[in-house]
Amino acid sequence: MTRLNPEFLSQLRSRFGDRLSTSPALLEQHGRGESHHAAGLPDAVVFIKSTEEAAEIVRLCARHRVPVIPYGAGTSLEGHLSAVHGGISLDFSRMNEILRVSPEDLDCTVQAGVTREQLNGWLRDLGLFFPIDPGANASIGGMAATRASGTNAVRYCTMRDNVLSLTVVLPNGEIIRTGSRARKSSSGYDLTRLFVGSEGTLGIITEVTLRLQGIPEHTAAALCSFTDVGQAVDTAIAVVQLGIPVARMELMDRGLIAAVNAYSHLSLKLQNTLAFEFHGSPAAVEEQVRLVASIVRDNGGNDFEWATSQEERSRLWKARHSAFYAVVSQRHGARGWSSDVCVPVSELAGCIRHTRELLKTCTIPAAILGHVGDGNYHVVFAVDPSQADELETVAAINKKMVQKALSVGGTCTGEHGIGTGKIAYMRQEHGQAVDLMRIIKLAMDPHGIMNPGKILPDDALLPVASGKARSGER
Amino acid sequence: MTRLNPEFLSQLRSRFGDRLSTSPALLEQHGRGESHHAAGLPDAVVFIKSTEEAAEIVRLCARHRVPVIPYGAGTSLEGHLSAVHGGISLDFSRMNEILRVSPEDLDCTVQAGVTREQLNGWLRDLGLFFPIDPGANASIGGMAATRASGTNAVRYCTMRDNVLSLTVVLPNGEIIRTGSRARKSSSGYDLTRLFVGSEGTLGIITEVTLRLQGIPEHTAAALCSFTDVGQAVDTAIAVVQLGIPVARMELMDRGLIAAVNAYSHLSLKLQNTLAFEFHGSPAAVEEQVRLVASIVRDNGGNDFEWATSQEERSRLWKARHSAFYAVVSQRHGARGWSSDVCVPVSELAGCIRHTRELLKTCTIPAAILGHVGDGNYHVVFAVDPSQADELETVAAINKKMVQKALSVGGTCTGEHGIGTGKIAYMRQEHGQAVDLMRIIKLAMDPHGIMNPGKILPDDALLPVASGKARSGER
Repeated sequence: MTRLNPEFLSQLRSRFGDRLSTSPALLEQHGRGESHHAAGLPDAVVFIKSTEEAAEIVRLCARHRVPVIPYGAGTSLEGHLSAVHGGISLDFSRMNEILRVSPEDLDCTVQAGVTREQLNGWLRDLGLFFPIDPGANASIGGMAATRASGTNAVRYCTMRDNVLSLTVVLPNGEIIRTGSRARKSSSGYDLTRLFVGSEGTLGIITEVTLRLQGIPEHTAAALCSFTDVGQAVDTAIAVVQLGIPVARMELMDRGLIAAVNAYSHLSLKLQNTLAFEFHGSPAAVEEQVRLVASIVRDNGGNDFEWATSQEERSRLWKARHSAFYAVVSQRHGARGWSSDVCVPVSELAGCIRHTRELLKTCTIPAAILGHVGDGNYHVVFAVDPSQADELETVAAINKKMVQKALSVGGTCTGEHGIGTGKIAYMRQEHGQAVDLMRIIKLAMDPHGIMNPGKILPDDALLPVASGKARSGER
Repeated sequence: MTRLNPEFLSQLRSRFGDRLSTSPALLEQHGRGESHHAAGLPDAVVFIKSTEEAAEIVRLCARHRVPVIPYGAGTSLEGHLSAVHGGISLDFSRMNEILRVSPEDLDCTVQAGVTREQLNGWLRDLGLFFPIDPGANASIGGMAATRASGTNAVRYCTMRDNVLSLTVVLPNGEIIRTGSRARKSSSGYDLTRLFVGSEGTLGIITEVTLRLQGIPEHTAAALCSFTDVGQAVDTAIAVVQLGIPVARMELMDRGLIAAVNAYSHLSLKLQNTLAFEFHGSPAAVEEQVRLVASIVRDNGGNDFEWATSQEERSRLWKARHSAFYAVVSQRHGARGWSSDVCVPVSELAGCIRHTRELLKTCTIPAAILGHVGDGNYHVVFAVDPSQADELETVAAINKKMVQKALSVGGTCTGEHGIGTGKIAYMRQEHGQAVDLMRIIKLAMDPHGIMNPGKILPDDALLPVASGKARSGER
């Protein structure tokens, strides 16, 4: 299985002992994650414990021209983890320390392997929380690397806005900090934002400094249902346009509600549904609820059903978060394929209509859900990965969704990232800006060892160096 | 005066006619702006009208290795406009068209020369506004280039967060768009944020797509005064830590109030003052006011004085915005020198105390003001630029302020940028990350023609190409 220079591997093994593994099952898991994309196996997995260890491995890999692929919690969806040219998977699960929390500055610093739920569990007693919530219990490093967002982004924005600074191991093994703890700065190039969303292709994120929020004084959650999905979308658009600061506003179509009811043992009304969460003082929440309720009525929605207790709210959002798994579980042996486009809010209704037309003749189980306040939505398909025609069908629908989104000024991915899965759309979305991305990539990672084969299409200016450099080494 | 290859200049003149000027007064103005830094004269100023004209000039300058310096409204403060190696100043004042406003998506696209006040004048009738407000009537392109912020940032963040995408002329004359109109995206490297704050050193921003806000239903402004400036700072910190969404929270020390009263013919109480603005529904504003008032009382402040009418509010903020000019006007023939640091909020009181100690023995007129909700504050000095010892005194205080800020995890500039004035602190603040900035700069602008001499210190990895390349050409 191993294609690496044996000397390189034995050097690494003597350094890391049983924290290096080449077990086939582990390689398979690390080369795929939850993605529907085929696994690309790394040559070895190393469980690192510190930034210095990451730097040590990167220096060694740079010398031997071996690819390095960071692995957080394995929840990425677009083939980010696939070791398309082999290499070393850096597993961050043992770099999971919360290094510092400063309640008075509403910020903290964590190692990249800390997960979202772990962090929020720790923060709860301090009256704080970290709002970015992609559903999956992803690692904070992985969320930064894919510029993740999720259900709370309509109010609290995305990882782009909530990362204050990063510790990064560069492709030559140097360690940098990308920013200070000041809440704003005009000091030099925004390296933080350059690494956020770079999917491990420019460097390895090992520590993350995050902005935090105070847990709101009062929280309320509610569901309302619509006979037509278009009414639900129109409601969401009106809420955004009126600037009502809802904390969550999630669309779940009827198919999704059916899947979620079955998977999470719930009995939600079998209708197209908007799920809301409101944060603020009791008076502020009451005001938001009153305004939203009147918009819901104007658009033909039913009255709110309240999830008033903390427990009910938790069940509701847990069910929403398990939507991906709920759809996939409808079919034995299926894998999930989640599409992901984001469009200007004014184009959202048209795009969702277009998507529903595409789904009319599709017999593969599928459901629409979306962070509709951002103009971001998904179709989750439960595909049989052994059926090539199914994969082709979904790929064709996915392509049409993306092209519709691009045609109205949107993006091919709102929050999942490019990985290998969306590379084909980079040129169409970015034009010549892709060549600039390639220039930056080549300047920072001349040997192409950092998560090669991701983000940048082969037609971008110059071929990737990695594959060639590495095979020359062997 | 002109040091350029005469053939190059005559080629440019025949193309642009009387839109090219070499008038000494114009060169002086364009090489300095409002900065206290010495002017570095460009060889010529060209008043461009389109992105394509900018690209045409950049291509010509690239061929002849001539520097290009973009000029918006001339309000930058750290020597950004200084043509340290000569070259062409690109004046954007005739690229001032508002290209598109989409009220339903709360966004717009403007040419880079549109000013903040021009944009807000246009938006008013649509019930919209653009919140970023650095005080000066800066151009939107210049605000993007310096990652500006200002009085509203405590609620509405900075240019970093409010620019959706840019049109940029690259150093080779190619034109790119850095993003879509989607409110969020995970598609590739964040080129938008790379150019925001790059001060014209990586490319020329020619068009800007911005997020907009609905004009709040209700607005209230109030002043409260404190005998001790520390009480005012503690009040601001408590407001931030409790997450009260004030729209503005500005510190003006007693010296500033005196200057502002004289300059703007006001009679504000001669005390250390916090000025607040509250945005929201009437109920939300009332709630914010109640909470803030109780914090003010707890910290020994006096009761609010209200600016209730639109007219009074306008006078108040106009006076605040003219603070820089108010201090400078106290002294005949003086120029303003505004320091600018930003620190974690928990360190703000200590830093301001430290600054006040530094000012105790300083006889140059000076006043402290700050966007204290962000941890960002300034001292404005009215210096006599002909007195070398005064410049030295202010430089020494400035240096101590910056070093104090860096020592507590802050940044050497919250919003003014690096220009030439803060280059000396780049290495101290960013360490080896400066070398990475240089690698990016060299990859994108190998001939060093884009606003050379800004942001990057000479010790960063490799010498700047521009000066040499250009003198080789002559």
